[in-house]
Amino acid sequence: MLLHLSTWPEVEAYLQRSQGIIFPIGSTEQHGPTGLIGTDAICAEAIAKAVGETTAALVGPTINVGMALHHTAFPGSLSLRPSTLIALIQDYVKPLVRAGFTRFFFINGHGGNVATLKAAFSETYAALLELNWPQAEQVRCQVANWYMSKSVMQLAQELYGHQEGSHATPSEVALTQYVYPEAIKAAVLDPLLAPSGHPIYNAIDFRRHYPDGRMGSNPDLATPEHGQSLYEAAVKDLSNTYLQFLAQS
Amino acid sequence: MLLHLSTWPEVEAYLQRSQGIIFPIGSTEQHGPTGLIGTDAICAEAIAKAVGETTAALVGPTINVGMALHHTAFPGSLSLRPSTLIALIQDYVKPLVRAGFTRFFFINGHGGNVATLKAAFSETYAALLELNWPQAEQVRCQVANWYMSKSVMQLAQELYGHQEGSHATPSEVALTQYVYPEAIKAAVLDPLLAPSGHPIYNAIDFRRHYPDGRMGSNPDLATPEHGQSLYEAAVKDLSNTYLQFLAQS
Amino acid sequence: MLLHLSTWPEVEAYLQRSQGIIFPIGSTEQHGPTGLIGTDAICAEAIAKAVGETTAALVGPTINVGMALHHTAFPGSLSLRPSTLIALIQDYVKPLVRAGFTRFFFINGHGGNVATLKAAFSETYAALLELNWPQAEQVRCQVANWYMSKSVMQLAQELYGHQEGSHATPSEVALTQYVYPEAIKAAVLDPLLAPSGHPIYNAIDFRRHYPDGRMGSNPDLATPEHGQSLYEAAVKDLSNTYLQFLAQS
Amino acid sequence: MLLHLSTWPEVEAYLQRSQGIIFPIGSTEQHGPTGLIGTDAICAEAIAKAVGETTAALVGPTINVGMALHHTAFPGSLSLRPSTLIALIQDYVKPLVRAGFTRFFFINGHGGNVATLKAAFSETYAALLELNWPQAEQVRCQVANWYMSKSVMQLAQELYGHQEGSHATPSEVALTQYVYPEAIKAAVLDPLLAPSGHPIYNAIDFRRHYPDGRMGSNPDLATPEHGQSLYEAAVKDLSNTYLQFLAQS
Amino acid sequence: MLLHLSTWPEVEAYLQRSQGIIFPIGSTEQHGPTGLIGTDAICAEAIAKAVGETTAALVGPTINVGMALHHTAFPGSLSLRPSTLIALIQDYVKPLVRAGFTRFFFINGHGGNVATLKAAFSETYAALLELNWPQAEQVRCQVANWYMSKSVMQLAQELYGHQEGSHATPSEVALTQYVYPEAIKAAVLDPLLAPSGHPIYNAIDFRRHYPDGRMGSNPDLATPEHGQSLYEAAVKDLSNTYLQFLAQS
Amino acid sequence: MLLHLSTWPEVEAYLQRSQGIIFPIGSTEQHGPTGLIGTDAICAEAIAKAVGETTAALVGPTINVGMALHHTAFPGSLSLRPSTLIALIQDYVKPLVRAGFTRFFFINGHGGNVATLKAAFSETYAALLELNWPQAEQVRCQVANWYMSKSVMQLAQELYGHQEGSHATPSEVALTQYVYPEAIKAAVLDPLLAPSGHPIYNAIDFRRHYPDGRMGSNPDLATPEHGQSLYEAAVKDLSNTYLQFLAQS
Repeated sequence: MLLHLSTWPEVEAYLQRSQGIIFPIGSTEQHGPTGLIGTDAICAEAIAKAVGETTAALVGPTINVGMALHHTAFPGSLSLRPSTLIALIQDYVKPLVRAGFTRFFFINGHGGNVATLKAAFSETYAALLELNWPQAEQVRCQVANWYMSKSVMQLAQELYGHQEGSHATPSEVALTQYVYPEAIKAAVLDPLLAPSGHPIYNAIDFRRHYPDGRMGSNPDLATPEHGQSLYEAAVKDLSNTYLQFLAQS
Repeated sequence: MLLHLSTWPEVEAYLQRSQGIIFPIGSTEQHGPTGLIGTDAICAEAIAKAVGETTAALVGPTINVGMALHHTAFPGSLSLRPSTLIALIQDYVKPLVRAGFTRFFFINGHGGNVATLKAAFSETYAALLELNWPQAEQVRCQVANWYMSKSVMQLAQELYGHQEGSHATPSEVALTQYVYPEAIKAAVLDPLLAPSGHPIYNAIDFRRHYPDGRMGSNPDLATPEHGQSLYEAAVKDLSNTYLQFLAQS
Repeated sequence: MLLHLSTWPEVEAYLQRSQGIIFPIGSTEQHGPTGLIGTDAICAEAIAKAVGETTAALVGPTINVGMALHHTAFPGSLSLRPSTLIALIQDYVKPLVRAGFTRFFFINGHGGNVATLKAAFSETYAALLELNWPQAEQVRCQVANWYMSKSVMQLAQELYGHQEGSHATPSEVALTQYVYPEAIKAAVLDPLLAPSGHPIYNAIDFRRHYPDGRMGSNPDLATPEHGQSLYEAAVKDLSNTYLQFLAQS
Repeated sequence: MLLHLSTWPEVEAYLQRSQGIIFPIGSTEQHGPTGLIGTDAICAEAIAKAVGETTAALVGPTINVGMALHHTAFPGSLSLRPSTLIALIQDYVKPLVRAGFTRFFFINGHGGNVATLKAAFSETYAALLELNWPQAEQVRCQVANWYMSKSVMQLAQELYGHQEGSHATPSEVALTQYVYPEAIKAAVLDPLLAPSGHPIYNAIDFRRHYPDGRMGSNPDLATPEHGQSLYEAAVKDLSNTYLQFLAQS
Repeated sequence: MLLHLSTWPEVEAYLQRSQGIIFPIGSTEQHGPTGLIGTDAICAEAIAKAVGETTAALVGPTINVGMALHHTAFPGSLSLRPSTLIALIQDYVKPLVRAGFTRFFFINGHGGNVATLKAAFSETYAALLELNWPQAEQVRCQVANWYMSKSVMQLAQELYGHQEGSHATPSEVALTQYVYPEAIKAAVLDPLLAPSGHPIYNAIDFRRHYPDGRMGSNPDLATPEHGQSLYEAAVKDLSNTYLQFLAQS
Repeated sequence: MLLHLSTWPEVEAYLQRSQGIIFPIGSTEQHGPTGLIGTDAICAEAIAKAVGETTAALVGPTINVGMALHHTAFPGSLSLRPSTLIALIQDYVKPLVRAGFTRFFFINGHGGNVATLKAAFSETYAALLELNWPQAEQVRCQVANWYMSKSVMQLAQELYGHQEGSHATPSEVALTQYVYPEAIKAAVLDPLLAPSGHPIYNAIDFRRHYPDGRMGSNPDLATPEHGQSLYEAAVKDLSNTYLQFLAQS
């Protein structure tokens, strides 16, 4: 059930049976010479929709732009500053809590979002506890990274081994190829396996060490078929995770 | 050309021929008993994609949640506070300016966004002028409301007359019916023509005066065929507006 | 009744009969070679005082500096950033709401304030609804632009036609001449009718397109007598608007 | 020379001979049963205008609302939060620095403003030094409290001795009587001499200890004639202070 | 009783007998060629610990970095911006108020903190009053500057007379020598008595006028024995001040 | 070399040989019935000082209060909101960068700080890149959690196995016992091994699931001797980590 394709009376009815909502959160950032700039949002959105179907959960609109400041030296990359993303999460959560939602499950496609999301959850809880709303104490937020779910990691290891890398990975590229086969890109990757090992600091330092944007990956290995398998693995894993989240005491 | 389906080298190449980018901006808010909560984002996104094709322009990811605080007494409505949306716009614009973009065209589907967007543009210009980036002086932002384009307003008048209203209008409902025919909703509208005339103040006051969420509209008049006509009218109008924006001295 | 010339027991007594307050809001910005930098504040203040007398309303202190970032490339222009003005409006409104005021009527002299004021009202309503004050739901804010009142626009059209323009207009200059006849300025206007038609972007772009600060106007047409007529028209119109605002269900 | 009654070319000419500007800053807060709510703004504005004339200095618009949170339990009192006032001061100063101003002299009528103003100056200096504007290093801000100038304090001591108190003082009431003789108020003061000695904490605590708003004062002693003497003393003292400020190496 | 060396049940027990807490607040800033960068924090912390022992009060962790923007042109100086320090104070106070604390006593070692602390107290009170917590009205904050306590000022006058100066004073240097005799520094002071009399503006202006960082002081006069005497004087004075603060009606 | 016990000329000299600085960051939060509220700050500070000695590095003042909002339902716990901590980190870093520092190494004692610190680093880098300071591109920040260093984790596993838990662990309690043997606390732990497994949400939820504050730990196992071993292991590990951080290309 997609929030964007629902009416408010449908949401009112949904709240009678569930207080949970899923938000896909991605990023709009370079993913190397062949990866789509929307990769993280595309993956998160596709998986979230299917998790929503599998679990009969409401799925909110995709947060398309995340915390990707370190990618902004590549043209076309956008980012929220962490403090903006913290404000955004609060703004999203508050009216939904007032309406009765208490379980917020963020299906995330971008590692750079995790730290800020966690900070945002903390700040949001504290702000809610100041409001004296009875349901404020019940609110719980969780982030689930699709690329770190057990089945996905196992499959990626089998398919790509050490060529998976950590940014513009064949896994995520494959998943976008499955979702948007019409947007499969070709480019010479040089070197085929991108450099790795340098920590992430600022945007200019990042580009200096990762000149084509990839980190330790060889996305040439990606195929749409892999993408479908990864997608299915992620949907299965995260559906379980979501149901456990709801069932938690 | 969709930013999300492009690679950074493609954006780099695009910048050689154009410094313009289009952002669809909508809202996630109640649209009456039969209107989709995502109506404003759906309309803005669909139109923006077509304007991008018509004008060979780059289209960024949709800003799905806008300034809809006055709708938040209906379940499922989200909103950014104006100060958050101002921060978000700055965050979106700055790295793109650094990359070379100077023309930002926001195709907007929600009246409630306009004031905050204009405030955000002002704050963004001032912040950019403090940065001493040579291109900062060249930056221009414009908001174009699809529902106020000349052809759209004329067509809506012909189709619906005074039953168009101002929120959950048959025009916007029709457009979503055209885009998502599988999500056409049915519900008894009572009264058929919603009340109108009360100004917008806070969320509770809004719901008190507009109990089912509609403002002066009869969305029962909407059909997918109307939606297609309205869509085509909007795309034509806004394509022209965008090209004029680029051509401006 | 001017707040600045009242005592707190007088305000306490006033609250027994009315919960409304009027705030003049202007700007401190260039108004061309002959227009006063305080034009917008002067007009708003003079009209607000008279509206207050006509309607027995309390009039708060003038907000002298508004949102005029686009004028700041001319010496002597000041501006609040939108986010500061949003904070300011909240700060003004909150203690008055706690004291019992629920109707806030801003008589505005500057077009550049409107968007930010509307954003500020939205943010203020939302902040108030979080406070659990019983009267928070009753709070209503309205902005009334004196220069757009029906009688004023009609009179300006009669007096100046297309030479009215949109900044440093003969109307507003005339009104300041009526209020401050000792401060009537003379300068050669070249060209007599200022250029027009370029949208407002950043401060440097603004000055490039409007080199002497005027937009499409010929303020040489202004006379103190016109000013008096415009003033009287505005006071009459806005007094009615204020009373309707109070009477609104 | 009043900024509000000047044109931008006049300001441009003024900058050739001086880089100084004076801002009156007051407050909008209760001043006991007979003191005007605008007392602090009225005093600061009247004195600043005369200092401006005496020293041929430019005088900006009055900051009518200051930091008076502790007075907000009395109806009609307004306040900026300190963080808002800090933002406001930065916003005022920045465009003037860009235009060439480097000396900012705040004539202050309210003790509660001082701490926040000093904090604001510090924050503003630091923000300016980040901008790489050549003149940023030259910027200096100073606050001058008229009620603490040497001649004023001496005169107040002679006229009122220990009945001067520290809020709603006969001195400030007298000065407003001189400026607005038509707004002299009468009320029974009970006790004639207000309580004193309790430090200032929050607004509710304040009103509990100072039930009619006065602090240690007997404003019944005020006369318009005293007001004139105090005004003249303040203008003389602060004119000297301003000139010394400008002359400082 | 040090908060850092206590357990939460010990704090719970403490709250049964007292609702007061002491926070040392210092700064991390240059103190001339021989003064320690931590001088202000070291002094505040040492005195606060002893005041805590003397009065059986709970002492919180030292706020090591204060508002010292004007010192930041000297290497090793840190500062919070005033707006950050205001946020920090609120964050410290709120959970303690929720736990039952209502008296906050800041023992301060740095003049530059005072204005911002006062602003922070005001902003904190106002924020607390919005929360509808019953104890919010009871909250009181006070800053006590050890270097301005009566006995300390008298002793400093006797020991150093006009060579005390106002920054990097022999008093504070002596106190750090008493606390950290192993960190007594030697350097040629040239001139022996630092210049004085120039107001504090921005960091670059400060260093230009106070080239070695001292203001009007001769810290060569400091001895650890003086430091002990000053320390004991401060502890005695501030213990009394704290007890009076608690006893206040 | 402790910043607090150094003079600015000593820092100036230090900068000739190193551009690195270490900041201990802890927290002020409950650590169960026997753990000190200052545990995280005490551990981080003690280790940082020794790492500073081992590596001849400059050590800044301890950040005593971190992000511990989830602990604030226990009396005596403090916390910065994430957005405040983000602002604080920026404020600390900026003047040091201007002075020439480019390597910032945070030795951290509290898991709850990590997410916000990472967010803060990102926001700080982006802010620095806007400043056009030549050294801004060189700035790197790293957080090192002493409790997760390899030797420490191995030792904790050997000493405590599954009784280590994740909050109020015997490891951290032992380390504080070593540093402050005079502050070893005794209390009945019931149950001896605290509950575990519930994720961290808001403060009230936390206390409901972890009623005495411990998470999965048995701090009764701690001894000062263990503490010494853990301390030495941490110092050795983090000294290496710091030197690698400096040596990184």
